Amino acid sequence: MPQTRGDFHPAPDTGEFSLIPAPPWHYSGDLLTIEYRTDPGRVRELLPEPLELAAEDPGAVALIWADWQSCGPSREELLDPVRAQYKETFAVVRCSHRGRTFSRCVHIWVDKDFAIARGLHQGYPKRLGSVHLTRPHPYGPAPRIEAGARIGATLAAADRRLAQAVVTLTGPSETGGFVNGHPMAHHRRVRAIEKGRGLALDELIETGAASFEAGPAWRGEAELELFDSPVEKLAGLAVREPIAAYYRQVGVVWDGGRLLESAGPGSRS
Amino acid sequence: MPQTRGDFHPAPDTGEFSLIPAPPWHYSGDLLTIEYRTDPGRVRELLPEPLELAAEDPGAVALIWADWQSCGPSREELLDPVRAQYKETFAVVRCSHRGRTFSRCVHIWVDKDFAIARGLHQGYPKRLGSVHLTRPHPYGPAPRIEAGARIGATLAAADRRLAQAVVTLTGPSETGGFVNGHPMAHHRRVRAIEKGRGLALDELIETGAASFEAGPAWRGEAELELFDSPVEKLAGLAVREPIAAYYRQVGVVWDGGRLLESAGPGSRS
Amino acid sequence: MPQTRGDFHPAPDTGEFSLIPAPPWHYSGDLLTIEYRTDPGRVRELLPEPLELAAEDPGAVALIWADWQSCGPSREELLDPVRAQYKETFAVVRCSHRGRTFSRCVHIWVDKDFAIARGLHQGYPKRLGSVHLTRPHPYGPAPRIEAGARIGATLAAADRRLAQAVVTLTGPSETGGFVNGHPMAHHRRVRAIEKGRGLALDELIETGAASFEAGPAWRGEAELELFDSPVEKLAGLAVREPIAAYYRQVGVVWDGGRLLESAGPGSRS
Amino acid sequence: MPQTRGDFHPAPDTGEFSLIPAPPWHYSGDLLTIEYRTDPGRVRELLPEPLELAAEDPGAVALIWADWQSCGPSREELLDPVRAQYKETFAVVRCSHRGRTFSRCVHIWVDKDFAIARGLHQGYPKRLGSVHLTRPHPYGPAPRIEAGARIGATLAAADRRLAQAVVTLTGPSETGGFVNGHPMAHHRRVRAIEKGRGLALDELIETGAASFEAGPAWRGEAELELFDSPVEKLAGLAVREPIAAYYRQVGVVWDGGRLLESAGPGSRS
Repeated sequence: MPQTRGDFHPAPDTGEFSLIPAPPWHYSGDLLTIEYRTDPGRVRELLPEPLELAAEDPGAVALIWADWQSCGPSREELLDPVRAQYKETFAVVRCSHRGRTFSRCVHIWVDKDFAIARGLHQGYPKRLGSVHLTRPHPYGPAPRIEAGARIGATLAAADRRLAQAVVTLTGPSETGGFVNGHPMAHHRRVRAIEKGRGLALDELIETGAASFEAGPAWRGEAELELFDSPVEKLAGLAVREPIAAYYRQVGVVWDGGRLLESAGPGSRS
Repeated sequence: MPQTRGDFHPAPDTGEFSLIPAPPWHYSGDLLTIEYRTDPGRVRELLPEPLELAAEDPGAVALIWADWQSCGPSREELLDPVRAQYKETFAVVRCSHRGRTFSRCVHIWVDKDFAIARGLHQGYPKRLGSVHLTRPHPYGPAPRIEAGARIGATLAAADRRLAQAVVTLTGPSETGGFVNGHPMAHHRRVRAIEKGRGLALDELIETGAASFEAGPAWRGEAELELFDSPVEKLAGLAVREPIAAYYRQVGVVWDGGRLLESAGPGSRS
Repeated sequence: MPQTRGDFHPAPDTGEFSLIPAPPWHYSGDLLTIEYRTDPGRVRELLPEPLELAAEDPGAVALIWADWQSCGPSREELLDPVRAQYKETFAVVRCSHRGRTFSRCVHIWVDKDFAIARGLHQGYPKRLGSVHLTRPHPYGPAPRIEAGARIGATLAAADRRLAQAVVTLTGPSETGGFVNGHPMAHHRRVRAIEKGRGLALDELIETGAASFEAGPAWRGEAELELFDSPVEKLAGLAVREPIAAYYRQVGVVWDGGRLLESAGPGSRS
Repeated sequence: MPQTRGDFHPAPDTGEFSLIPAPPWHYSGDLLTIEYRTDPGRVRELLPEPLELAAEDPGAVALIWADWQSCGPSREELLDPVRAQYKETFAVVRCSHRGRTFSRCVHIWVDKDFAIARGLHQGYPKRLGSVHLTRPHPYGPAPRIEAGARIGATLAAADRRLAQAVVTLTGPSETGGFVNGHPMAHHRRVRAIEKGRGLALDELIETGAASFEAGPAWRGEAELELFDSPVEKLAGLAVREPIAAYYRQVGVVWDGGRLLESAGPGSRS
């Protein structure tokens, strides 16, 4: 049966993706996580019904820089690295859905289109940004992964700097943070093609890693600046109180999610 | 009612888009269209059911380079042109749906994320590419819009050149081509988040300009080269016979489409 | 005689450049010029001896956005436009050299490497930036070239926005401005490869167009913002008093300059 | 004494560079080196007088991919990594100068302007390219640094792919290759601003690392493809016989070079 090739939307189970293959998707990456508290009212504004603020520490935010190499089952993209490597910055909050606590990505910028395509499937509101993150290195001036190491991170979109941070590692950590530690509750919404008809697709899904491995976590202290922009909302999650920062190298497999709720066509019209 | 801000997916009718505003969307642009015939079997492979080959000239293809400035109703993006300007290359074929002839975009590359976001709404299978097109100019070495003018056009994706063309204008034309002259029949498909469940959204939509203005059309002859790529399918639409090339400056408004067919969730599982 | 091919430095008169051909260089472009007065002391700081402040209006600055298509004698780059098209933003002041008044580019950002290569030859201190400029267009929402037209312009480097402007055209103009209207007095300096030895090349050159054609000039009013950056100095030329803004389409030929002064090797050690 | 700020050319010993600080320059990087033999005649064509082919193995070439983080003495760029990180691909041959053997970079592409600026000082003929290199990683699908690891590398410029390689590591190595193991003999040439006057600067310099540290070297086998381009000469160094490939992580300090020969102004006119 002929299928649409070359579709940005994930196609049926024929494997005929050209921008991204069918899952599972494999990732090697370095994660810099900065956790802080913002006004819970700012988090509340980003949670569509029926999501509610998390019961504990509802203003907690994780702003995460990630430097990834990724691939599908064949792993062929790793050897044509323009199709495997990307960087992203994303903001995660927690929320409650029918009594369970979830993490939720509320803002995300990536620097490659294949990452946008995968994110659309997973309910991440991805757009393009310019993302940079210091890479620890065993030789020369770049930092080793050790106490005292300083790691810089920046984000820009549409030629405006949106965020910059410097994290100084202070020592080993039991965890890599708590805000991004739950399954993700994401919406997948597609507006109806006819004006005024609301949404053609309105799903709340649960998604998370199918498997996860990680090196030692490091804890640190962050200096974080968020900059106003006429077109981006990240600075709305202003820092009220720092929590901590973390650095960790990880391996992740993603292999599908689960539908939590689906509103019928025409919802919210 | 709180809404998800910053969503790549178009949100409900609150106007709270950050990457793209709600329609209508306005465009000023220059179009270079190269029409040719390919093996109709290659077109057939790109048409999902219930679409069929067009009755007349079923192997006709239009490969189009466009250099756009675009904006929403406020037109504010025009004054922050990093958010208004983009270029794209796209391949259009014709097809038949229940006896009507439609145009259909089967491949498209753009160079900005807001163009991907709009294209997702409209059913264009957009991905990123590097697109260049000679701009006629009244002074200096660039061509005037006149007989003999030579216009170059190139497309690359993932660091590989996919297409290049040189068009020589020969004289005024009654039309800007026929392949892209019908309403578009596009699919909007979203794969289910759960593996093996087929599609969560499977729509066939009709879309086209709400209004259109254009300057004089010019006709020309094209030298066109398509290059193989391990990851892109454009070269599959190999040139069997040239038709003609066209150059035209246009203004377009897009303001929503119409649902033609919708399969229920779980279709094609 | 074998020559170094592929050299970023212009090579001898063999024509064996690969990044840029030997002059003459031809340009078609759109120029948006914003003239204003800054503290003359800020201009003085940017003038190495023996240059002095211009006698009249010494604090006048022109900040110029240009959208170019360029080529060498064969004009072949025009048909592979990734090698012909570039945009730039540059700041020009005037200065005096042995009683003559010159223009001088004190800051410049371009978005292509071939433009850096040509600029090195001509004494422009080019670096990379992200440059955007609204393009007037005869159809759709983009402005026509007429009174009331609004043209936006932005500049960023290293993921920070450095400048943005909106110019509203008010009517035809006799001129395109006066600050960039003189021959350019530029330094071409190369530091000695041995530390502490000063300069290996220290030339003051005169350069300007070999020929120039232009369409009607338009005058306008500018809203201009310059932003501080830890790494760029443009904001040092703060606006004290606006003069005027201009828009004009031009054709230019550049074909070499003239040596004004040359200090011997080891100068300024 | 006022100095020219913001100059792409390195300025005198005032430290007032804005794009690049004065040396020493510090580098942390990953190097993938592919050595092979080409027709020595192709190397000969790239050696200006008085350089001659190396006495032994004169057709040996090293094609090197490097993924760098770099900084000046303050190391501040490391924390604003858009100003520290860059990747490059470069081709190195050996040559003989007055009886001594040197290495010499004959082609080089980088992806940041500050790397072009430093390269101009050091005599590297840098231009922009798009460079990608698989990064070994301890978790997930990316390769570990071990026998059997496969590392991909690609190079493109002006939207054309110029080279791609896959290296499979086979085991530890005593060395990281021999072609790039000598001091570099580079030309620094600046064409006279007046046409027909030859060169204003014509130096042959010696340059190399002031200090060097490195991790264990790994040896491997390469599959290398070079692609023709109408504007780049890399494919002229066609592979006649493979030698070996190497992977190594390094730390480097560069702190100035030494003048070998200088022709007077007007040379080679």
